Amino acid sequence: MANLVRFGVSLEDALLKRFDQLIKEKRYSSRSEAIRDLIREELIKKNWRSGKEAAGAITFIFDHHQSELLNKITSIQHDSHSLIISSQHVHLDHHNCLEIIAVKGKPRDIEGLFNGIKAVKGVKHATLTITGKGGEW
Amino acid sequence: MANLVRFGVSLEDALLKRFDQLIKEKRYSSRSEAIRDLIREELIKKNWRSGKEAAGAITFIFDHHQSELLNKITSIQHDSHSLIISSQHVHLDHHNCLEIIAVKGKPRDIEGLFNGIKAVKGVKHATLTITGKGGEW
Amino acid sequence: MANLVRFGVSLEDALLKRFDQLIKEKRYSSRSEAIRDLIREELIKKNWRSGKEAAGAITFIFDHHQSELLNKITSIQHDSHSLIISSQHVHLDHHNCLEIIAVKGKPRDIEGLFNGIKAVKGVKHATLTITGKGGEW
Amino acid sequence: MANLVRFGVSLEDALLKRFDQLIKEKRYSSRSEAIRDLIREELIKKNWRSGKEAAGAITFIFDHHQSELLNKITSIQHDSHSLIISSQHVHLDHHNCLEIIAVKGKPRDIEGLFNGIKAVKGVKHATLTITGKGGEW
Repeated sequence: MANLVRFGVSLEDALLKRFDQLIKEKRYSSRSEAIRDLIREELIKKNWRSGKEAAGAITFIFDHHQSELLNKITSIQHDSHSLIISSQHVHLDHHNCLEIIAVKGKPRDIEGLFNGIKAVKGVKHATLTITGKGGEW
Repeated sequence: MANLVRFGVSLEDALLKRFDQLIKEKRYSSRSEAIRDLIREELIKKNWRSGKEAAGAITFIFDHHQSELLNKITSIQHDSHSLIISSQHVHLDHHNCLEIIAVKGKPRDIEGLFNGIKAVKGVKHATLTITGKGGEW
Repeated sequence: MANLVRFGVSLEDALLKRFDQLIKEKRYSSRSEAIRDLIREELIKKNWRSGKEAAGAITFIFDHHQSELLNKITSIQHDSHSLIISSQHVHLDHHNCLEIIAVKGKPRDIEGLFNGIKAVKGVKHATLTITGKGGEW
Repeated sequence: MANLVRFGVSLEDALLKRFDQLIKEKRYSSRSEAIRDLIREELIKKNWRSGKEAAGAITFIFDHHQSELLNKITSIQHDSHSLIISSQHVHLDHHNCLEIIAVKGKPRDIEGLFNGIKAVKGVKHATLTITGKGGEW
């Protein structure tokens, strides 16, 4: 477990009152827990911009009846196998599949893989979400 | 397969030239493919705001050594079992796990589940990404 | 001046170290100042979603040679005069103007005005940015 | 006026139907107008990432009773006078002012100015919004 450090913060009382209300709505157990989340969110954005390694998920929907689509997606994933940790696949309905790929690597490489998947004909929507790679905080 | 409809678009030539360059960089096979992507992106934002059912992914990192964390996360997921399609779990390092849950449901319910997970002590970062539920386009 | 309240926050030491580095890069004078900013950002997002009055700015670029454009934009602004506080106008080059409108009102009304301006033929790009209306914290 | 070029786009009919509905809601006069907006939005994001010159607005709220705040903000603006085109100032209530600065320059410089303003004690919230600098499309 990490060592905890304690320090004081001063806020305007009106601001603190509204923050406490937000904490309640978002179901945080303490102010520290909520503040930690805000800080980590900022750090993840900063790391991404500065090119540091990150983990994340590429989520996309596609119509598996589109010819050659499965082959293309599989081939793209194999070309980036070192970035991909694992994937899960969901059959949404008769036509549509949802696939989520867990990734880990440099922002530039993850974005390359993301653009490659997004551009395949038959991929209807793709998103990229980024988190830390663990261990940095 | 869906029926394709064809229509004409007029653009300023300077704008089209830059768009064609973007298409090349993003590796799209045609202008239509790139335009479809821009449109679907807009529609997904609109559906989410208007409360229509969507699919998506909740991604989070946590330290599995934090006491009671696994029990709490499992319990939260069971309470929302009707929203959750499946999940994948990755061991990032000795301490940290990455978990990605595929979800489907109303925005309000998905956000409730997301806030619940995010607020658990020991969950270091959580993101929510939304896509269509397939079949709507 | 608002009353300041002081409370303690506990963070993992690795997280605090990175936060202090971020504070230095962003030139904040204290941890409290940085934390206030993170909290206000969250509150502004929440207020906007829940429909509470806000202030903000609508920024757009247009080609003033486009026929009827100035008349249309002026007419749209007059229809929403109660939302608009003031505007500034910049001549970017021979063709292009940048206009920034300071607004105050309900999210739904501000978005209506924004969509109206964005849709005018000849408006090349429009953005909407939201802040508090002052006085709430 | 710019030369218009016309080309054909093919879309799935279900997608086009929903797009036409979105166009109606957002009050666009034609599909071309809506598609132009989506494309410009993408191009502006791309230009910003690649460091090309842009125009934009820095919007912030502050309490003018905070000692030394006006001097600090004015001093920061003078240090970046080559980036700043003009500014407008609104008295929101007895305590709070809204100031909007129209800027033009390199992303790195604009972000530096933005961080400088955001970090001043008494500045309660600041946003940065970016558009094109005109003339590029």
